Amino acid sequence: MTDAKTHGPRKTALWRSIADALTNDIASGRYRPGDRLPTEAELSARFGVNRHTVRRGLAALAEAGLTHARRGAGVFVAQSPTDYPIGRRVRFHQNIRAAGRLPARRILLKESRAATLDEAEILAIAQGAPVFVTEGLSLADDQPMALFRSIFPLDRLPGMPASLERLSSITLALRDNGIPDYTRAWTRVTAKLANAHQALHLQVKEGDPILRTTSLNVDPTGAALEYGRTWFAGDRVTLTLGGDDDQGG
Amino acid sequence: MTDAKTHGPRKTALWRSIADALTNDIASGRYRPGDRLPTEAELSARFGVNRHTVRRGLAALAEAGLTHARRGAGVFVAQSPTDYPIGRRVRFHQNIRAAGRLPARRILLKESRAATLDEAEILAIAQGAPVFVTEGLSLADDQPMALFRSIFPLDRLPGMPASLERLSSITLALRDNGIPDYTRAWTRVTAKLANAHQALHLQVKEGDPILRTTSLNVDPTGAALEYGRTWFAGDRVTLTLGGDDDQGG
Repeated sequence: MTDAKTHGPRKTALWRSIADALTNDIASGRYRPGDRLPTEAELSARFGVNRHTVRRGLAALAEAGLTHARRGAGVFVAQSPTDYPIGRRVRFHQNIRAAGRLPARRILLKESRAATLDEAEILAIAQGAPVFVTEGLSLADDQPMALFRSIFPLDRLPGMPASLERLSSITLALRDNGIPDYTRAWTRVTAKLANAHQALHLQVKEGDPILRTTSLNVDPTGAALEYGRTWFAGDRVTLTLGGDDDQGG
Repeated sequence: MTDAKTHGPRKTALWRSIADALTNDIASGRYRPGDRLPTEAELSARFGVNRHTVRRGLAALAEAGLTHARRGAGVFVAQSPTDYPIGRRVRFHQNIRAAGRLPARRILLKESRAATLDEAEILAIAQGAPVFVTEGLSLADDQPMALFRSIFPLDRLPGMPASLERLSSITLALRDNGIPDYTRAWTRVTAKLANAHQALHLQVKEGDPILRTTSLNVDPTGAALEYGRTWFAGDRVTLTLGGDDDQGG
């Protein structure tokens, strides 16, 4: 054990044995995916060691990807990645419910402003035409899944700001604006490393892997409705394409 | 400039001015995506500085994602990411050619062995039934795009090893085995960090972002033909879904 050099053989054995015991507890199902582990104080008492040693053991579990800490809430057993279908109809709430989890959205920003060149091209509107931007966090069982930014063309959807004030789902807000249905025209996917802002909101570490999607939703006539950009925590979400009736493949 | 503390104000100004000059060269199109930059010796002569200073300037460009080094070949201007459509028909050679680049494949491993439980389930064969495994590197214009592993059921495709000996493309090898066409049943996408093996072959750094896809190709009757796993260099490839006739969306 190379750690013995810095921490002494006795200390190494202690935190390692705590990590091993908790790993066994998770493997045996005593703690299941999504469960909160006992507090540091409770683990100190159970193992008869000080909190520093408990913390080192917990750090080893987190390092191995078995657990994750949520600020102010405790340490939780990692879930296996949630499947997130990218088909013709991509609906956040439905997708998360289909995975047996409880969806929620937390809005971080809402603003009306002029479209950038990039946004105008994708939404097929004039550069500088008004758009409504909403940014926020998508959660499953209170765990952050993704950061999103949605951009709506205001000339086409003037009621969107008011609708999104009252309604939590984009599907309902679009219906409120006379759009009964919408479909995904295209999605582009790439891999990135989490920056500080993303790490903070997604509760991952800076430099952790992120799936970034860029997408366009259109109405039944093909008119652009929503230009979206989403950053998924890479170890919590698997994007799935095909394999169901909703897909071309 | 905080670097002044460690390198002195003069040194900082020199490498920074070299980085700025080369950045301008790239922005103005003097060096285009895919071009090789002059050697360190040539840049030393051009800027009248020692190689250490040139190297620091080049490191700043690489850090900014403007260039990438290829072992033994030099420093190249980064390409914008290549679009890689994931539709009903995913064909590596066609996809890379459609992006205006020259496709190639380099095989790293070929072996026949018994299917693991996971492979057997996905290919709908008995656990332990024989499979043919091929691993390799996909290149575009000689630049590594992806590492791949393809697993073929040998009872269904007994001639695959011999066909892949003669033919470089999976499409041609399948045709050689009496499969005129095949389609993508599903694809799963997640984000990972490059490990040492992946970094070496993809010529990225350990910990760089990687797009990992898992997929199943089937014949026109729906029988499983190829279980694939691919690791794309995250900054070189954008997976695209929908937006063309080949897709359901």
